[in-house]
Amino acid sequence: MTKRLLLAAAAAFALPFPALAQTAAQVASVRDAAMRDEVAWNVVEGLTTEVGQRLAATEAEARARAWAVKTLTALGFKNVHIETYRMPVWVRGAETAEVLGSAAQKLAIAALGYSGSTGVQPLEAEIAYFPSLADLQAAPTGSLKGKIAFIDHAMVPTQDGSQYGYYGAVRRAGPSIAATKGAAAVLIRSIGTDHHRNPHTGVTTWAQGVSPIPAAALSVPDAEQLVRLVKRGPVKLRLAITPQFKGEAESGNVIADIPGSDPNAGIIVVGGHLDSWDLGTGAIDDGAGVAITTAAALHAAKLGQPRRTIRVVWFGAEEVGGFGGEAYAKAHAGERHVLAMESDFGADRVWKFETNLPSGAKGIADRLETALYPIGIERGREAAHGGTDVEPILRGGVGTIGMAQSGIRYFDLHHTPDDTLDKIDPEQLRQNVAAWAAMLAITANAPEDIGPVSAEH
Amino acid sequence: MTKRLLLAAAAAFALPFPALAQTAAQVASVRDAAMRDEVAWNVVEGLTTEVGQRLAATEAEARARAWAVKTLTALGFKNVHIETYRMPVWVRGAETAEVLGSAAQKLAIAALGYSGSTGVQPLEAEIAYFPSLADLQAAPTGSLKGKIAFIDHAMVPTQDGSQYGYYGAVRRAGPSIAATKGAAAVLIRSIGTDHHRNPHTGVTTWAQGVSPIPAAALSVPDAEQLVRLVKRGPVKLRLAITPQFKGEAESGNVIADIPGSDPNAGIIVVGGHLDSWDLGTGAIDDGAGVAITTAAALHAAKLGQPRRTIRVVWFGAEEVGGFGGEAYAKAHAGERHVLAMESDFGADRVWKFETNLPSGAKGIADRLETALYPIGIERGREAAHGGTDVEPILRGGVGTIGMAQSGIRYFDLHHTPDDTLDKIDPEQLRQNVAAWAAMLAITANAPEDIGPVSAEH
Repeated sequence: MTKRLLLAAAAAFALPFPALAQTAAQVASVRDAAMRDEVAWNVVEGLTTEVGQRLAATEAEARARAWAVKTLTALGFKNVHIETYRMPVWVRGAETAEVLGSAAQKLAIAALGYSGSTGVQPLEAEIAYFPSLADLQAAPTGSLKGKIAFIDHAMVPTQDGSQYGYYGAVRRAGPSIAATKGAAAVLIRSIGTDHHRNPHTGVTTWAQGVSPIPAAALSVPDAEQLVRLVKRGPVKLRLAITPQFKGEAESGNVIADIPGSDPNAGIIVVGGHLDSWDLGTGAIDDGAGVAITTAAALHAAKLGQPRRTIRVVWFGAEEVGGFGGEAYAKAHAGERHVLAMESDFGADRVWKFETNLPSGAKGIADRLETALYPIGIERGREAAHGGTDVEPILRGGVGTIGMAQSGIRYFDLHHTPDDTLDKIDPEQLRQNVAAWAAMLAITANAPEDIGPVSAEH
Repeated sequence: MTKRLLLAAAAAFALPFPALAQTAAQVASVRDAAMRDEVAWNVVEGLTTEVGQRLAATEAEARARAWAVKTLTALGFKNVHIETYRMPVWVRGAETAEVLGSAAQKLAIAALGYSGSTGVQPLEAEIAYFPSLADLQAAPTGSLKGKIAFIDHAMVPTQDGSQYGYYGAVRRAGPSIAATKGAAAVLIRSIGTDHHRNPHTGVTTWAQGVSPIPAAALSVPDAEQLVRLVKRGPVKLRLAITPQFKGEAESGNVIADIPGSDPNAGIIVVGGHLDSWDLGTGAIDDGAGVAITTAAALHAAKLGQPRRTIRVVWFGAEEVGGFGGEAYAKAHAGERHVLAMESDFGADRVWKFETNLPSGAKGIADRLETALYPIGIERGREAAHGGTDVEPILRGGVGTIGMAQSGIRYFDLHHTPDDTLDKIDPEQLRQNVAAWAAMLAITANAPEDIGPVSAEH
């Protein structure tokens, strides 16, 4: 906790405005004050420095929860508490890859979440190269017996991050497909858009009945190197990948409220996820998300007690399967949630917002457009979707608003050792806080009833 | 050896021009043909792919020499051979650093060349933080007893790379100073300008009588993290750094000639260094340098047999103390070298040339200015200095010409795992080849006598 955080906390609840539907000028004042925010930076700086990486259900994630409670309490939130749940734990072991023979050299790899193990005795096997997931799918059953499948792809940076959905299938589904065809292990080109020797981890999913095999990502330069070698002739690798499944352990969500004045108006949930991958310090994924939404809630509350409760949730265990989001939705099924939003796409500038609102509350989107136009945010045409952690809430027909951040450099850093504080641009972070603060100032005080949504937006 | 390399080799000596002083138009034709060069790319692609890292005096460097002989022979060079020498060998071991206590986390480090070892039992000690080398120098003798000295600095990118000389003292001299003051180990902020979790290695120098202590570089993000932690209070680290001194082993230079027609006109030496650090594949440092100078020699020879012998040397063991350059100068002290030039600053565009020529040969600089003006290369005002490997030749009063490459991103990559092929821009590489080819076309055929130089240029 820094002095600046404490000062920000003292200021947060000091203004005596009554809780009325806000005017456009009031929203603008919240937005503009948030453009000078220091809380978000201090939160993400503190979390990434004082805790570091926060792999789900480990001692580090527990330290992060304690840090969160201390910080959110000091910032003046009410009802700050941890809600725990149990979940399976997977932890990284050794991970080395060496080309054998005349081009002997090491390659940089990182095991995928839920990878199997080679055992202590390294595996030596030949590469079977697949330029695409479709090529792997076309391989005859059994044809990979005793081989290391190597799956390539051609993901490029996009502003909306959409290529992660498309090419990300290589990581999510590729290993399981390779296993069903008899592969002894699987390597993928990192699902990333950079050219650094830092592999991108992330979970893979084993289909029902498929036993995990060793599965790892090569850094993009190493994947390109392996392609060059494979094109010259057969390549044999020695692989040692020794992660462990450790049984069940405790994880948890940290919850903090700014209580609303009207208990019938419902709760607005905002947040990000507290856990991170174990390679970096989880600055953009997702220290930034908890920092942005936390700071934004404080700025929105400067208009006085909001009509609706603003609940900030720092979800646990998102990366490894969304356990925190599921646990929250289950534990709070009896409450009236009217909106749920997550920030989980880095800390770069918001360039677009989208909504999924009930027909009686469409005016909110118009007021939001007015508030966000001056800070470079357009109104999008698609229906908003929530992040992983709020999806279980949204399933019940709850509305959402999406703040689309620029994804141009997100997959340079995502799930790598390079996800560190220095990658956050403080100015862009503040623009995020301003966008979320304006959105919360509008939605938490909206005079409309915010009812359930149907499929249309 | 690729098919394209062989075709280039076949073409290299095919043109039947007589060996006359070249015209400006002939030099321009060499330059422009070199702007379409494929040899340099194929050399650096082959070397970094088929050999990988090439740490001095290791099995990998020996494989690189064999690769070099095969390649230079196929390219049509004469007198291709290896000249060996023996030298001390230092190899990397384990290297881990962990913050202990409430902010427990791992930090990314790489041992410096000639670092001492912690032994198998890790060292646990408190950090003593020094914002600069001057702060370390001011610490009282004995004040670091049992501590880990951590030396910071503020190096930034520069086009001329000059900050490496200035801030690089932290790596070259810092560890020895820390050792004399009783430090148990030393960490430095990487001498680098990037923000990736890839530490920059490089040699450190122990003053006479100082016993090596464990010495490593933190990646820049990790150094910044450690500064943030140190500012919060005392920090204790667990360090395991276990490199080994392995006694003496063989290293060597690879030498290849394009023989000149006039044995009295002297030899022009060009080259780069074949060895690399062990973390990357040595693409920019210095696969590019051997590739550029080799390709340039072939292009220059397209004017017909040159008057002077062009000797291409792929020096060994530059990174760890310049053993190859010293060995070459000693072995060839009886020969008449008239110019010696090295390319060892990456593969980005040449923006300036400088010369150090005897008074009777200043016209060469004027002709070079004419040839290089059209490809974005200005004539500089300072005296040229040679690279590490040709310095021992230059000491004898031999002239040189410097092709200054842009260093803006060189220290993002230098001595890191990120020094890989993908960092080379083929277009900029070709511009380098063109500059060197034009320079060799002029100098190898210059009708002037190129005598010894004095201190002035």
